[in-house]
Amino acid sequence: MAPTTNIKEAHPMKGGDDPNSYVQNSSYQKGVIDAAKEIIIEAVTQHLDLENNLTTFDPSKPFSIGDFGCSTGPNTYFAMQNIVEVVAEKYKSIKQPKPEFHVFFNDHVNNDFNILFRGIPPNSDYFAAGVPGSFYSRVLPKGSLHLAHCSYALHWLSQVPKEIQDKNSPAYNKGKIHYTGTEKYVVKAYFDQFQRDMDVFLTSRALELVGGGLLIIQMPGLPSGETMFTMTGAGLLHAILGSSLMELAKSGIISEESVDSFNLPQYHPSMEELGKVIERNNNFTVEKVGILNHPMKDLPFDVQRTSLQVRAVMDMILTEHFGEHILDQLFVIYTRKLQENYDVFDKQIRKDADFFLVLKRKFH
Amino acid sequence: MAPTTNIKEAHPMKGGDDPNSYVQNSSYQKGVIDAAKEIIIEAVTQHLDLENNLTTFDPSKPFSIGDFGCSTGPNTYFAMQNIVEVVAEKYKSIKQPKPEFHVFFNDHVNNDFNILFRGIPPNSDYFAAGVPGSFYSRVLPKGSLHLAHCSYALHWLSQVPKEIQDKNSPAYNKGKIHYTGTEKYVVKAYFDQFQRDMDVFLTSRALELVGGGLLIIQMPGLPSGETMFTMTGAGLLHAILGSSLMELAKSGIISEESVDSFNLPQYHPSMEELGKVIERNNNFTVEKVGILNHPMKDLPFDVQRTSLQVRAVMDMILTEHFGEHILDQLFVIYTRKLQENYDVFDKQIRKDADFFLVLKRKFH
Repeated sequence: MAPTTNIKEAHPMKGGDDPNSYVQNSSYQKGVIDAAKEIIIEAVTQHLDLENNLTTFDPSKPFSIGDFGCSTGPNTYFAMQNIVEVVAEKYKSIKQPKPEFHVFFNDHVNNDFNILFRGIPPNSDYFAAGVPGSFYSRVLPKGSLHLAHCSYALHWLSQVPKEIQDKNSPAYNKGKIHYTGTEKYVVKAYFDQFQRDMDVFLTSRALELVGGGLLIIQMPGLPSGETMFTMTGAGLLHAILGSSLMELAKSGIISEESVDSFNLPQYHPSMEELGKVIERNNNFTVEKVGILNHPMKDLPFDVQRTSLQVRAVMDMILTEHFGEHILDQLFVIYTRKLQENYDVFDKQIRKDADFFLVLKRKFH
Repeated sequence: MAPTTNIKEAHPMKGGDDPNSYVQNSSYQKGVIDAAKEIIIEAVTQHLDLENNLTTFDPSKPFSIGDFGCSTGPNTYFAMQNIVEVVAEKYKSIKQPKPEFHVFFNDHVNNDFNILFRGIPPNSDYFAAGVPGSFYSRVLPKGSLHLAHCSYALHWLSQVPKEIQDKNSPAYNKGKIHYTGTEKYVVKAYFDQFQRDMDVFLTSRALELVGGGLLIIQMPGLPSGETMFTMTGAGLLHAILGSSLMELAKSGIISEESVDSFNLPQYHPSMEELGKVIERNNNFTVEKVGILNHPMKDLPFDVQRTSLQVRAVMDMILTEHFGEHILDQLFVIYTRKLQENYDVFDKQIRKDADFFLVLKRKFH
């Protein structure tokens, strides 16, 4: 059996609940949840086939839901509430009693579960459990889950691709902290890692889910027709973080070498790439895919909010590599650079694509 | 459905892993686990009736175990490992495949789950989940558990009995922090609270357990033939804590009133009292009861270790009431008083009784 805790742990969101925490700075991700609410309602209503599988979805037994990469809240509470409500509605519509709901909140061992647990709304209509461990491994027993959800977490890779950090590899990524899309070997190394990780994710969830169970994913991806990651809002944000680190290096506060050896373990796939990995994995049928209509897309770009959000997400990974002492100074530079590039961001960020996918566990 | 998190939270063990933490000071409780190992082996081997209930205990489905009042570790890991091993052995003995194991670690929302999760042995042969919430409520779905375990936690009441703190009640407990056994109304108020709590505990576990599922309890109790709690080691420890607080009050560091309004929410029942509550609850049959043979019973009384252990257990409840600033000074006095009463403790503590009970969920 896969042990649950010996996977190399990486980059949980900033814990606690102070002004720099993820709890206080995840409104973009909340926007994803809001935009996904309609998707969830439609997915469950149309694709969760309770009526023909009442042995698998027996309402006298608990209906189990997993949120993979739940972080510290509050977004996961909204998502879980949405799911519980629409599943209950679905049972009602087929004249079955409402099952008891069991919600499994999953994230890295180093996620702040204490904050997560304290924030669970007191009158939630479900029993809550926290599941520590990387979702790039089995974290729940076989067939123990009826619905899995993963929002804005699957673009995080399990690790930085090894070649990126190998000085003798053509994929060595000197002077940058991510791929822009122009460096063939670098992009390939990132894509290969993504494929491997995604395949492990799908296989693990397939084992945990019952046949006919749904897997609902939201994640940032490459907009259709775009090939350069650096032309997306997310790509630009990463490039600016890289150049802010280089500016710190030039003033001698950190070494250039430490920037060279820092790389973001993230990949934003195209819809085609995603489709291929799912098809090859062969455990799921694709019920529906599309692009979320993020409610913030129509608002002007907000420098301060974006800076705080990026800091909450990147805090731990930056602290691990460079130490906590550089963070304040780094984000002063970062905020300035966002401001300097305001017009580009205000235009570019609107084009970014947040994918959603509704997959169904095959019965084989 | 019972919400999982709106129960008044009380007295989790001291979190973190510093020298004053529960993690570092729970060797007495570990002794209980060691002494209980044989009990667990015998309980599962003799009383877990897999062979005649292979629908309920279907090895193709996860076998779920709950530890209620697990605290921050490491004792819960030993207990869970013991259970998983003997259950696996039992399946093997009836020529069935080994099921996957799902372990639910339950404690108050304010328990330090981050420390608990980080300590889970990396190669444990089970999937781990944390369940936040008081065990004096439902914390898991109906019929979701095959075996429940509760070690050294059930003597903690859900709250201080109200009458104890009511100046107009005959049970008002002025100048003391617990019952000694001589005050009729005080003892009755404590016992009534214990009965109510224990009944809620049993009913909650009965709903969570499958028919035929086992509930294994270890808890401190009143030695047979003894009626005065103050004549037990635990009673003496509480009395000394009370008199240490009064000494602080007399030097003006805390008010006497604050000592009057402080009471320990603990009850150590006699075996007869326990038996009556279980019988009246009517959800369980009693398969076996007895007194644990604690391995520390043969060692000389250790003042320093006992003082540290009591501090780790009482830290949070004392801090909530009096503030953290008094703790160092309080435990200097406490240690001195333990030393002064060395001979009494060295004799008395050996008579203390740790009960074990093996209960089976009825099939009704």
